[in-house]
Amino acid sequence: MPNITNLFGAELKVLNVGTEVFKESLAAQGATVLHLDWRPPAGGNPELAQVLEKLLDRAETEKANALAVERVLTAHPMLIDLGSAIEVIPGMTRDTFLHAGPPIAWDRMSGPMRGAVIGGLLYEGMAGRPEEAVSIVESGRIRFSPCHEHSAVGPMAGIITPSMPVFILENRTHGNRSYATINEGLGKVLRYGAYAPEVIARLKWMEEVVAPVLKEAIRLSGGIDVKGLIAQALHMGDECHNRNKAGTSLFIRAITPHIMRSGFDPETQARVFEFITGNDHFFLNLSMPACKAMLDAAHGIPGSTAVTTMARNGADFGIRVSGLGDRWFTGPAGIVQGLLFPGFTAGDCNPDIGDSAITETCGIGGFAMAAAPAIVQFVGGNPKDALNFTSTMYEITLTESRTFSVPNLNFRGTPTLIDLRKVIETGILPIINTGIAHKEPGIGQVGAGLVRPPRECFDRALLAFAEAV
Amino acid sequence: MPNITNLFGAELKVLNVGTEVFKESLAAQGATVLHLDWRPPAGGNPELAQVLEKLLDRAETEKANALAVERVLTAHPMLIDLGSAIEVIPGMTRDTFLHAGPPIAWDRMSGPMRGAVIGGLLYEGMAGRPEEAVSIVESGRIRFSPCHEHSAVGPMAGIITPSMPVFILENRTHGNRSYATINEGLGKVLRYGAYAPEVIARLKWMEEVVAPVLKEAIRLSGGIDVKGLIAQALHMGDECHNRNKAGTSLFIRAITPHIMRSGFDPETQARVFEFITGNDHFFLNLSMPACKAMLDAAHGIPGSTAVTTMARNGADFGIRVSGLGDRWFTGPAGIVQGLLFPGFTAGDCNPDIGDSAITETCGIGGFAMAAAPAIVQFVGGNPKDALNFTSTMYEITLTESRTFSVPNLNFRGTPTLIDLRKVIETGILPIINTGIAHKEPGIGQVGAGLVRPPRECFDRALLAFAEAV
Repeated sequence: MPNITNLFGAELKVLNVGTEVFKESLAAQGATVLHLDWRPPAGGNPELAQVLEKLLDRAETEKANALAVERVLTAHPMLIDLGSAIEVIPGMTRDTFLHAGPPIAWDRMSGPMRGAVIGGLLYEGMAGRPEEAVSIVESGRIRFSPCHEHSAVGPMAGIITPSMPVFILENRTHGNRSYATINEGLGKVLRYGAYAPEVIARLKWMEEVVAPVLKEAIRLSGGIDVKGLIAQALHMGDECHNRNKAGTSLFIRAITPHIMRSGFDPETQARVFEFITGNDHFFLNLSMPACKAMLDAAHGIPGSTAVTTMARNGADFGIRVSGLGDRWFTGPAGIVQGLLFPGFTAGDCNPDIGDSAITETCGIGGFAMAAAPAIVQFVGGNPKDALNFTSTMYEITLTESRTFSVPNLNFRGTPTLIDLRKVIETGILPIINTGIAHKEPGIGQVGAGLVRPPRECFDRALLAFAEAV
Repeated sequence: MPNITNLFGAELKVLNVGTEVFKESLAAQGATVLHLDWRPPAGGNPELAQVLEKLLDRAETEKANALAVERVLTAHPMLIDLGSAIEVIPGMTRDTFLHAGPPIAWDRMSGPMRGAVIGGLLYEGMAGRPEEAVSIVESGRIRFSPCHEHSAVGPMAGIITPSMPVFILENRTHGNRSYATINEGLGKVLRYGAYAPEVIARLKWMEEVVAPVLKEAIRLSGGIDVKGLIAQALHMGDECHNRNKAGTSLFIRAITPHIMRSGFDPETQARVFEFITGNDHFFLNLSMPACKAMLDAAHGIPGSTAVTTMARNGADFGIRVSGLGDRWFTGPAGIVQGLLFPGFTAGDCNPDIGDSAITETCGIGGFAMAAAPAIVQFVGGNPKDALNFTSTMYEITLTESRTFSVPNLNFRGTPTLIDLRKVIETGILPIINTGIAHKEPGIGQVGAGLVRPPRECFDRALLAFAEAV
């Protein structure tokens, strides 16, 4: 065995912890260096570190988080009905438009959200032309409110207007409900800010034809187990945010016999079927409210550091934390890094937008990318990256799902319930995979990729706990 | 640096090639041993080695195999119609029963195949009772012939009788057709040797109700691209032999609008739909004939060492080789190793049976297990094994698919077209994952697992080339 005196005579084998400067110098001199990617807790910020230290060993926090974990794991969302937003969503009025992300006023809304608001006014018949729609908004007549504050979620702009049909999900364990619109498909669609006549015509057809057929089929089905469909889809290459091909297929298998027995004429049935099967993202508008129903069950537990909302309005990224009630903690929405459709450039991209990060908040989406290796063809990277993203998310979550599992990780449960403390402690930010909207209204999706929330959201939320501890 | 004189004074690092005895002794003495799993070509058999050597550098073989590769890669099977076996399968007569695997007579048939023959006679109305069916067979009235010799394939017992409706696939590149029955579902079914009244009643209902609806829907569809469905299913966790959940889902998405427009009454439509969606293996009876159509396009090329058939009749495992025409090379069917359903033991298992190994012969099934990590819950092992099985099969195949790819292997094409020479050279036998039938007729499936062909099939086929080279 070498002793200390011949340390520098022998071959150097170094374990470097923290800053990478030493690693690089040593490696340049031919030493074997293993690097440990360590950072001081709370990024070295003493104020954050102080709150973190108090929260880490607090019995009350542990107990509150254990309850949040139990709630989210046992929540069981079922699709039970479909109805008009005005009739079923709590707090909805004739002048209310719901939107994605944290609260935002018209003057700060990004292009796609403004486009979707204009489209919403045209769809509701409140305006005849886009300019008229803008003056109505500027008159202050429309009350904007986040979907999330009404048990609802909306992808991209997330605009829900009073007449829109919405899926109704119920968490059969805890009784809470959640809501989402029917996915419109790809291309020029309202959620990406398009408001051309064909966009409005499609929304009307969805209200008048698709919704009644689906409502009757859902009634005949006696309820569809969306949690079960997500679990199966994760074994079939979906992560249920940016890839919903299996989920859409499984939903079709569950609903179709009831469409056939709905009494609607065959041509109507066939067109509704073709509308659903023509859109591999159809299931997104069921996986999102399923996650919302599960997370709302874990929201509002005093002392819990579980993150129960991550959502973006196209300008701000906002989170909510179970133990901090309905307060939003925000930071600037990031730019999604990924693959752009032909003809578009980075300059075309709107900042991160939509409530769809509810999937990651619930441990699927980007958190379950290891289940969906084929998704890298859509968001970029390679299947190894997908495995790594999921593996890393275990470092910032409180638990592993008992229902959702990842075959490629030997059926390990998906990383579930982000712990605000662990995000601050490790400096690891949640990974989100998402669509990219064009920054101008009316153009639509320009690509898909990966994004992380701004660190500020988490720092601010942690400091809010300072008052409580 | 140590010199040769202090070899045994320094720590030993050994690379052991071939027999494992040295590795074990060295390891027992604490040496670091890396083992290279090498075997002499042709297992050290001089007769085989001589033929192999001639075949390995033969320009004619290379050219013939290049043509076989091109044929199988460009073949494009489409589902184009459905018809009665008697009307559409070449060489079918009123007294012909087709069966899985190489030729076999009644006296050597295993329990499940005998049961399926009895069921076939009851279904055809040729016998009123099982005993009567047996005497008819023993009278020699029934002519048995392998499905494979009639452009057809059948899972498990693979019995195709004259009145059975069969899918008709056409390889739109080369024009050849292939045939397979409609999958009956799980539990007590004819293909596992069951012939109880409910089994026969289901087959009649399939003939009288399911087949006409599907025939009309296929006609309205203008043809369904089964090759395309397989490619998508491989990105959705299927390997298209023992896991067909995605393939079944995708077929449902393709066929259903045409069922809705077929003119049949809604209740009939709904029951047919429920029959299909109730069976995650429905697509097996489309993936099998798709593979058959692709491989038949590469069959019969003089000089080619590509394996174009692997099939089992429950007693013998048989292969056919492109350059050796319609001769079968057989060996004893193996016992499948895997997971048994509760209540069954190894003593209940029939030897390997069915034409479903056509999927492996075409580079999917066990060869594409890396695409289907969730399948290990059904056949045993873990997802790492699934990756390894696919990786190893590249060592015995001629090419990689341009259409079928494996996300988990960074979208590498599936290992395609087994080269008889490479099997002999490496000693690596193809991996097949498959269902396990009870050895007695009438009981059904008892589990699923993995099996390899007997080496004799390949040895015998290679020796048949001795005459040609």
